Amino acid sequence: MTELLPRLVTEAPTKIVLILIDGLGGVRTDERGSELHAARTPNMDRVAREGSSGLHTVIAPGVTSGSGAGHLAVFGYDPLVYELGRGALSAAGVGFPLKPGDVAARVNFCTLDANGVIADRRAGRIPTDENARLCVKILSDLVPPAGVEVFLETEREHRALLVLRGEGLSPYLLDTDPQVTGLPPRPPTATVPEAVETAARLSDILAQVAVALQGEKANFLLLRGFDTLRELPLFPARYQLRAQGIAIYPMYTGIARILGMDVTTVVGGVTEELDALRDSWADHDFFYFHHKKADSAGEDGDFDRKVVAIEEIDAVIPDIAALNPDVICITGDHATPSQLRSHSWHPVPFVLWGQRVGVDGVEVFDEEAARAGGYGSILGKDVMGLMLAGAARLIKYGA
Amino acid sequence: MTELLPRLVTEAPTKIVLILIDGLGGVRTDERGSELHAARTPNMDRVAREGSSGLHTVIAPGVTSGSGAGHLAVFGYDPLVYELGRGALSAAGVGFPLKPGDVAARVNFCTLDANGVIADRRAGRIPTDENARLCVKILSDLVPPAGVEVFLETEREHRALLVLRGEGLSPYLLDTDPQVTGLPPRPPTATVPEAVETAARLSDILAQVAVALQGEKANFLLLRGFDTLRELPLFPARYQLRAQGIAIYPMYTGIARILGMDVTTVVGGVTEELDALRDSWADHDFFYFHHKKADSAGEDGDFDRKVVAIEEIDAVIPDIAALNPDVICITGDHATPSQLRSHSWHPVPFVLWGQRVGVDGVEVFDEEAARAGGYGSILGKDVMGLMLAGAARLIKYGA
Repeated sequence: MTELLPRLVTEAPTKIVLILIDGLGGVRTDERGSELHAARTPNMDRVAREGSSGLHTVIAPGVTSGSGAGHLAVFGYDPLVYELGRGALSAAGVGFPLKPGDVAARVNFCTLDANGVIADRRAGRIPTDENARLCVKILSDLVPPAGVEVFLETEREHRALLVLRGEGLSPYLLDTDPQVTGLPPRPPTATVPEAVETAARLSDILAQVAVALQGEKANFLLLRGFDTLRELPLFPARYQLRAQGIAIYPMYTGIARILGMDVTTVVGGVTEELDALRDSWADHDFFYFHHKKADSAGEDGDFDRKVVAIEEIDAVIPDIAALNPDVICITGDHATPSQLRSHSWHPVPFVLWGQRVGVDGVEVFDEEAARAGGYGSILGKDVMGLMLAGAARLIKYGA
Repeated sequence: MTELLPRLVTEAPTKIVLILIDGLGGVRTDERGSELHAARTPNMDRVAREGSSGLHTVIAPGVTSGSGAGHLAVFGYDPLVYELGRGALSAAGVGFPLKPGDVAARVNFCTLDANGVIADRRAGRIPTDENARLCVKILSDLVPPAGVEVFLETEREHRALLVLRGEGLSPYLLDTDPQVTGLPPRPPTATVPEAVETAARLSDILAQVAVALQGEKANFLLLRGFDTLRELPLFPARYQLRAQGIAIYPMYTGIARILGMDVTTVVGGVTEELDALRDSWADHDFFYFHHKKADSAGEDGDFDRKVVAIEEIDAVIPDIAALNPDVICITGDHATPSQLRSHSWHPVPFVLWGQRVGVDGVEVFDEEAARAGGYGSILGKDVMGLMLAGAARLIKYGA
């Protein structure tokens, strides 16, 4: 079935700012309430007071969303239909511009003992610069298999990204990482006949890696999550929006780039993100403004730091509003309650503000207030329609 | 499309208790509110206060659910996709272990007049032991058609279950019960060519029944709801849960058995159900604890008795909580408002309690409080995801 929103999209001289607070959603387990409840957020509260709120269930009740799926949902892509694969996300994470046909995998530097058995799956979490040195060493020694280009990009500590580029490659390979110590790495193994040739090429590469890393503490590579770039409808064409993504972590500008947005990966913090927003203002209609720290604090189980992260983004909202966007939307891509130290399935509050949005009587921005909001409880993928509608960018459906 | 939850299920050392109060939902028509509102339920209110609530629409807005469909929904099976046929339910109702290929039908003992016209569709509601005597008489005289085994099981009063077992039987037959008096029973009639042979065998059986019952007040059988066992994914494999069903009526343990749960059909009341729960505690992860009386009272139009039924199950909640389950979910399979004296389409409140669930600020357990709850309004089939998530039994969706 054709999707609804792309059929209804029309152009308008309006601008939408989506402030995406990563891992925004929380839960109440004691009198402090959620982090968003506990945070002092006069500006978000004003947005709520002058706008309309709701709660979105990112994927489905009880289902915890990954970052990729959560972003897709908030961008209006049904996450049960569209997929931002692991390979694409890993590549995004190191700012690697993955191309169609490329096969990407997540890499762990590991330590094998004298018998070729995994002694440490993370090679003692080697420092990032050691990782970088070893990547250079591997690549400078490597004779790539015929017709294959090999990329090996340092991520952090023991983590890296491997990309194979060439004709006829297939990502249908088992992980070589058995996920436990005491076993040897698995040989590259195809799961479909079309991947047999790719497995052979990978075996060739790994044999050379073993030689290049001889004598090092990190003396081999474990690979997992083989993947290729999935075909996704591009955001600017889908919504007739000149779109700009602004984030500090390459992972998030990477997601925006995969969707065809212009991107700025900012060095610094929210102030520098704000500068990037101003710089791109004139030439764009849709701004995805990403704030990471709430999620990181939630993952670390640090309630107070998540509160501070939320207050930090709250503080720049007047500067964003000063640009006179037609619609401001504030929400998250999933919940990351610090009490659970991880992403969770709990619904995420959202608020929209704009001339056409209307006022629903909600006075503050948090989970409990939002669920009494004018938009009620909807799915994550449906928030985008509200942004477009608020910006007068959807025509009427039906006669 | 593959279903989402079974793809995400993982094992965890956690236990879930589902307290299913049959026909729980009600409506407010006067100052008493619904039965749940009127009932004194300090323990359910505490569960609500320490957990999160919501309302579930069992099937779709305005659609009244049968018992089978309502149970399937609460067990996380989309009732528009999966079906627990009437035959399966009838067999469940008398504890008959239906096998694939069996054809089952609901039976009424009836009274025909001298002209073979139905004078009483229920044979004056003959006593259950009279029903049992006549079933034995029919079966002892019967010469079954070649290749067919015939089972006739007393249910209650004038109701019984007929099962034909054999090769090549088909359930595609019209009801022989015309549902009115003053007409003769319809002859067994196939609705598809494959069922012609089954209709002929049934005609043979009914001719023998007429002879066997000559001179009795209940002198013939009316048949309806011909059905066969549907294929359903089994609950324990679907959710990786060792599941135990506990109920007083065989109909409800029957449903659990069809889904592959271990079952205990309890003789007695909630106290005995509680004993069964304790007995099965160590070896199971999921407990379906059924309470029937609320539905029966609702069907009888007895508001006060439904209130008492709800208070009765409320009283045992501390005993259930004392077992230290990780998740408690309290809900119903459909509404049975006593004002309507029947199942209804009204949304059914649910509440979840557990360490990972979070607290939504709702103070009591009833329809009006639940609709302001943290889970909002969802479909019946989506409650199961919340139980699994609360028990840490779902992995993250997407990268």
